[in-house]
Amino acid sequence: MTVFNFSAGPSTLPSAALREAQDELVEYAGSGMSLIEMSHRGPEYTAVHEDAIALARTVFRVPDDFSVLFLQGGATLQFSMVPMNLLGAGRSGGYLMSGAWAKKALADARLYGETYMAWDGSASSFDHMPDPREISLQAATRYLHVTSNETIDGIQMFDWPDVGVPLIGDMSSDVMSRPIPWQLFDLVYAGAQKNLGPAGASIVFVRDSALESTNRDIGAYLRYDLHRDGNSLFNTPPVFSVWLIGKVLKLLADQGGLDAVEAAGRDKAALLYDAIDSSSGFYTSPVQVESRSLMNVVFRLPSEELETKFLGICADAQLHGLKGHRSVGGVRASIYNAMPLSGVEALVSVMSQFRAESG
Amino acid sequence: MTVFNFSAGPSTLPSAALREAQDELVEYAGSGMSLIEMSHRGPEYTAVHEDAIALARTVFRVPDDFSVLFLQGGATLQFSMVPMNLLGAGRSGGYLMSGAWAKKALADARLYGETYMAWDGSASSFDHMPDPREISLQAATRYLHVTSNETIDGIQMFDWPDVGVPLIGDMSSDVMSRPIPWQLFDLVYAGAQKNLGPAGASIVFVRDSALESTNRDIGAYLRYDLHRDGNSLFNTPPVFSVWLIGKVLKLLADQGGLDAVEAAGRDKAALLYDAIDSSSGFYTSPVQVESRSLMNVVFRLPSEELETKFLGICADAQLHGLKGHRSVGGVRASIYNAMPLSGVEALVSVMSQFRAESG
Repeated sequence: MTVFNFSAGPSTLPSAALREAQDELVEYAGSGMSLIEMSHRGPEYTAVHEDAIALARTVFRVPDDFSVLFLQGGATLQFSMVPMNLLGAGRSGGYLMSGAWAKKALADARLYGETYMAWDGSASSFDHMPDPREISLQAATRYLHVTSNETIDGIQMFDWPDVGVPLIGDMSSDVMSRPIPWQLFDLVYAGAQKNLGPAGASIVFVRDSALESTNRDIGAYLRYDLHRDGNSLFNTPPVFSVWLIGKVLKLLADQGGLDAVEAAGRDKAALLYDAIDSSSGFYTSPVQVESRSLMNVVFRLPSEELETKFLGICADAQLHGLKGHRSVGGVRASIYNAMPLSGVEALVSVMSQFRAESG
Repeated sequence: MTVFNFSAGPSTLPSAALREAQDELVEYAGSGMSLIEMSHRGPEYTAVHEDAIALARTVFRVPDDFSVLFLQGGATLQFSMVPMNLLGAGRSGGYLMSGAWAKKALADARLYGETYMAWDGSASSFDHMPDPREISLQAATRYLHVTSNETIDGIQMFDWPDVGVPLIGDMSSDVMSRPIPWQLFDLVYAGAQKNLGPAGASIVFVRDSALESTNRDIGAYLRYDLHRDGNSLFNTPPVFSVWLIGKVLKLLADQGGLDAVEAAGRDKAALLYDAIDSSSGFYTSPVQVESRSLMNVVFRLPSEELETKFLGICADAQLHGLKGHRSVGGVRASIYNAMPLSGVEALVSVMSQFRAESG
């Protein structure tokens, strides 16, 4: 029976990328060595590194005045690096409080500069993203931080705020699922372990002009300008992760790029939300329709007892990783790029059968 | 022809660990998934993670009052994290200026607290580690930072400073090559990509009592206490790297642990230094005898022309990664744990032949 992995991250990877990495893991390109044993300044890794950056530029249609960085520490380290580099005297950071991840980003930013909530979704239990007209900016705002997809609550931003200040985007859980409106952003960051590749790397896209006035009195690893100047080889990079990310990018480019993957993502999500909406209330989505995430589909059943039973039946059917985050409960199906339509179909089929048997 | 990889890091890995990872990469333990696709909170990765920590405790003979952490950002991020967490009002950091890596550690620490050089080896071009009696501590010293092995200059610390203040050790390039005198240390850190595993992870050993008074007004990723409290699962860990580190630790434990690897390391280094010393001055070591590194053996030839020719002949003989660091030139043979004696024998043989032909 085919196994489908609905984990929120680390999550399912394209099997072609995994198989290729397996083939090459012990001996890379006839060298007698593994790529992960080689100097990060040698010709083999340099080519892998440059290719991954070039592919990212192509796939994401990155404008020439942005740099692409591969860092470590996940999105969590970016929660600190963004304000460390960008805030300071007379420069405050506005944050959209959209859920658990935005909360973490703001908590760290508060330590490094003036910050404020430009919108707060907590009163409605984070069931939607803001209408841009509800966002209130203060004077001297350096950036507005947005979390484009909240993995835990299952909401996603579709109406990008064009509000006169540069956006900083945490796109950890929906990066590479759709085009990025670069003109609105100074910086976009994402942990790799959803759509992009294995855990252990993060990708940062940063507008070069934004690096002209960053703070320099911070530790070397924490400075975007040094990583940019060193082409992300300022210190030893996470070789394996960058290598795999390159493979995933190549596959995506070959399969039609962002437009194709966005269309496929919409189809998968539509199938699942339709199954919820047509269940006569047996399955319910806690999320407002216009903010429903195409990446993390969260839903509830009539009782926790039924949810537990449902998750057990899914596991028996080799549908794994469906338990909702411990902070919210319920069910969460993460349907990132590498989840095939057949995986969603299998889930919808189990949902339908379970409802019939429990109704 | 067998390939030997003398790179300073990333560097040669035990082939048994690589082959095992290859076998398991696409399908882990009959799960139908790769380990790197699985949730870091699921049972499979949890077991891998716990095993790696337990093995590290055993192999390194870590005392009960130390915690073992797996982080990201390499030693470079530790250059910031150490002073961020440990310095502050009335607590200064003494640094042994032993070479290029100590210099980087101190440069970052200066941004986060009072620091000073407790010894400076620059006048003698970093050709030796200090005699502990030459170290001068100032009042209110929170820690003395030592770099146990300077990869670029090829010097190693054998006389650990027992000077009445806790040591912080950057052991990136000689960790797991010999026992650590825990009683002297509050914290030891190391990038993984030498003896321990692939790039993308660092290991930190920290005395629990040292975490009682760390600074808490720093970003979440940068706090040792949070990583300790979360057992290094506070955020998504570098799954692949930890998995491989576990395999390398297991192999080392099975092969006799630190004592066996230390003895083997001494034999390998002795062979190479003997070849230098018995070359009637054709090969010369710039390092004082008592500080000669057992990990990175640096040497010079009579001219840069001969060095270039020698490196070409080594490459033809499938001996790779021998070029000295760009800042110092010459030749550097990194002979970490996974370099077999036969690799050093092959190098010594080429050295002997080259000298005979060039003499």
